[in-house]
Amino acid sequence: MDFADFFPVWDKLKESERESLTASAANRRFPKGSVLHRGSSECTGLMLIRSGQIRAYTTSAEGKEITLYRLFERDICLFSASCIMNSIQFDVTLAAEKDSEVTVIPSEVYKSVMNASAPLANFTSEVMASRFSDVMWLVEQVMWKSFDERLAAFLLEEANIEGSDTIKITHEVIGNHLGSPREVVTRMLKYFADEGIVKLARGSIEITDAERLRALAE
Amino acid sequence: MDFADFFPVWDKLKESERESLTASAANRRFPKGSVLHRGSSECTGLMLIRSGQIRAYTTSAEGKEITLYRLFERDICLFSASCIMNSIQFDVTLAAEKDSEVTVIPSEVYKSVMNASAPLANFTSEVMASRFSDVMWLVEQVMWKSFDERLAAFLLEEANIEGSDTIKITHEVIGNHLGSPREVVTRMLKYFADEGIVKLARGSIEITDAERLRALAE
Repeated sequence: MDFADFFPVWDKLKESERESLTASAANRRFPKGSVLHRGSSECTGLMLIRSGQIRAYTTSAEGKEITLYRLFERDICLFSASCIMNSIQFDVTLAAEKDSEVTVIPSEVYKSVMNASAPLANFTSEVMASRFSDVMWLVEQVMWKSFDERLAAFLLEEANIEGSDTIKITHEVIGNHLGSPREVVTRMLKYFADEGIVKLARGSIEITDAERLRALAE
Repeated sequence: MDFADFFPVWDKLKESERESLTASAANRRFPKGSVLHRGSSECTGLMLIRSGQIRAYTTSAEGKEITLYRLFERDICLFSASCIMNSIQFDVTLAAEKDSEVTVIPSEVYKSVMNASAPLANFTSEVMASRFSDVMWLVEQVMWKSFDERLAAFLLEEANIEGSDTIKITHEVIGNHLGSPREVVTRMLKYFADEGIVKLARGSIEITDAERLRALAE
């Protein structure tokens, strides 16, 4: 996987710009569970996800969490380089949900190329607009959907990511994704189980009636 | 007020770019209550707010509303030109909260200058990052704050915008700002009144104990 796979505008950059991006980039590995970036105090750099799965989330003062979006292979993580823009005034934490390999471009290098290159600046806008769309989806979910609908959508998404009807996850982790206390997750999952929609086991959830789950989510 | 007041990068644009932006721009007036832009189906153009006050909000399928952010004099409204970026996949409605005067730059003109100009592209990113920060603030409010805290923050914001401790607003309009049913607003305002924090009258709310309201909001 090379830079052109991440940047569709790669051939619109000058030779010198491509060189400064590639020369400064470094590959890093983040084992499952590790934190890649925390809040706005760090400005690690732009991250190109070569493999794995990254979760972007925000936390309350009390340590509660809600997932903002996920990043997969070929995605670009902008907010680990939030200092490239003055107007990014919020904190995002990034953690590896699976063992992940990323290429990091230092923020100052990326910023200096972006400041001079219209194609790269416009591409960066598109990446941000895409994340903005993810967060707007979240706003709509949180505002207009009930918890059973959101939980149903989350279980379907997980099953889709894992390619399996059995999801290995704890109720607490689901709560952290959805911004809800564990007990609320447990109560709703028990209701789903009573209705024959899922089958609960220790550390895993099996979807037994995907159709009803989909009907709930929509 | 001219273009340089809106675009801090104005002197970094080429003469021809400045000309195409100014030549295509048109001034429009929107009376209080009118809708400037609705959803992603329209792509009216970039709007420069010369005077007035604009509310950006999103609606549920059932017509419920929540305010995303507000725009004031000298602000730029990007999402009325959402077609300038492919990755903006969400709907924002814009309505005038006060009589407003705006300068509209047609989307295709703005897009073509932005695509060629690194300064304008980077400035546009900053505008978007600023709105993104507003929406992230909203996510945190909705997720981690209780309704009394959010209502307190809203009343203080309104008093600040109006420069008065007496706010002319209905409970229904407050509900539309906060994404909550009118009855919930009425109930909480009555509680605030019982506590001596506000005084309620027909169509207006007077803040009588700003200190306690601030303590609640924080």
